[in-house]
Amino acid sequence: MKVRVDITLKPGVLDPQGEAVRHALGALGFDGVQGVRQGKVIELDLATEDADLAKTQAAQMAEKLLSNQVIENFTVTVI
Amino acid sequence: MKVRVDITLKPGVLDPQGEAVRHALGALGFDGVQGVRQGKVIELDLATEDADLAKTQAAQMAEKLLSNQVIENFTVTVI
Repeated sequence: MKVRVDITLKPGVLDPQGEAVRHALGALGFDGVQGVRQGKVIELDLATEDADLAKTQAAQMAEKLLSNQVIENFTVTVI
Repeated sequence: MKVRVDITLKPGVLDPQGEAVRHALGALGFDGVQGVRQGKVIELDLATEDADLAKTQAAQMAEKLLSNQVIENFTVTVI
């Protein structure tokens, strides 16, 4: 079963990577870019065929390893 | 207007980062993880209020800077 974990920075947390992308886009001539926020998407292929179990496992993985709970939020979606 | 650009590796392209995450999950006791694929999500805050223009601009940004067209696919979604 495939599960998608979307990891984004919490609101208010500075995003230096996003700022760097914004400046680079400006340098390439793309004006009108008011903000850029960068996140991660992790697609997990899990052995279980139980959707609830897969969601629970993925959330535990996100809490323990995939995301930094201090500055990041995550959402889990079965796909 | 906010636009989301999802960037994923093309099928068949090796994902060393994903492999490293898979091994780390195994070391943490998460068994049953058959595969891990990692991608990026970039949220753009564009000045335009025209959805079609925003999508076109974001696609151009993805082609020119945000994604590596050789090994990555991208999708653009107005949010």
